[in-house]
Amino acid sequence: MSVKAIFFDAYGTLFDVHSVSEKCEQFFPEKGMQISEIWRMKQLEYTWLRSLMDRYEDFWKVTEDSLLFALKALDLQASQEIRSALLNEYLRLKAFPEVPKALEMLSNRKMAILSNGTQEMLNPLVRNANLTEAFNEVISVDELKIYKPYMGVYELGTAKLSINKTDALFVTSNPWDASGAKTFGFQVCWINRNNKPFDELGVQPDLVVKNLEELANTLP
Amino acid sequence: MSVKAIFFDAYGTLFDVHSVSEKCEQFFPEKGMQISEIWRMKQLEYTWLRSLMDRYEDFWKVTEDSLLFALKALDLQASQEIRSALLNEYLRLKAFPEVPKALEMLSNRKMAILSNGTQEMLNPLVRNANLTEAFNEVISVDELKIYKPYMGVYELGTAKLSINKTDALFVTSNPWDASGAKTFGFQVCWINRNNKPFDELGVQPDLVVKNLEELANTLP
Repeated sequence: MSVKAIFFDAYGTLFDVHSVSEKCEQFFPEKGMQISEIWRMKQLEYTWLRSLMDRYEDFWKVTEDSLLFALKALDLQASQEIRSALLNEYLRLKAFPEVPKALEMLSNRKMAILSNGTQEMLNPLVRNANLTEAFNEVISVDELKIYKPYMGVYELGTAKLSINKTDALFVTSNPWDASGAKTFGFQVCWINRNNKPFDELGVQPDLVVKNLEELANTLP
Repeated sequence: MSVKAIFFDAYGTLFDVHSVSEKCEQFFPEKGMQISEIWRMKQLEYTWLRSLMDRYEDFWKVTEDSLLFALKALDLQASQEIRSALLNEYLRLKAFPEVPKALEMLSNRKMAILSNGTQEMLNPLVRNANLTEAFNEVISVDELKIYKPYMGVYELGTAKLSINKTDALFVTSNPWDASGAKTFGFQVCWINRNNKPFDELGVQPDLVVKNLEELANTLP
């Protein structure tokens, strides 16, 4: 495995989307994780559906819409203030604990984030986790107005880093994203944090690890 | 509401996808509904993801793949025979009880099925439910090699029935499909069988009913 550059997915890979469940739990006791799970599932669905319908709205709007759905689905009443407070948690997602050290170990290569999130959503996450220096680029699909796993998004990554796709490793915890990146032609590492099965989309990742630390220890 | 033609979605709208849970239950006691739910959720995801990745496989293959995922996700061992038996249930899905009567009441218009399923999957369902005479056309996305809610699929429907989209009603129980059809420009009826919230995709159906009988009683 020859790796001259590494692309990292953000949500679920570097940053824990279920960080929001704590705040959900404050407003809606015993419902925090359930809200968070429906919220995340619908957020992804809406990115795929809007892309297929060619009706792009940015990830902030999609995240707001999917939160609204999650609250309705669970029959929870929430004021505009509560909804805003929950949504703003997306600007404070925590990096997984092993991330800073692992990125340092991997830093002898070009590294970039390639994410569905907007620049406005990604920058505070990177800053709060003190990862600003770790990345050559923070790349958002927002530039193309279409979401992963559309091939053009992965292509955008290679253009931004001026790298051949076969020289790059794409790292993600999302099986559908790994399948997209593999279809595009990247080398792919799937971060399987919770011992889940991979998706049945006709491709397999080149490498499977349980977190970024294991990846850092594995890459030559 | 002027309606010269009606398009019906098949899976979940005319035919109950959770008919398969009984057979699942036979092989895996107490897991039937859980298998059926993951199976259906992944089946839909895979249609969206394959469409976005431009890696079409037909609905039979996607249904087989999503079953495989569901069994793995629940850590259930299933032989090829069992998997085939479960998959074949998709050729025996039951029509919802009110369907034959409601279609008869609506039959003074052109009517068609517009579905993700292949002709080979749809024909036995229509035949078993004695609905062959009810439809002018059974239209499959398989002709275009891309799934709903891609706009071209709805366009295919209007071409097959030689009808203007604004003269047609699209009937579906799937909120994402209703959102696609509405985006395309159809009049849309959402069948909300289980009192669920509609999706937050920026459009609303023109009509919401709890089943096809209510639709038949509502349409002028």
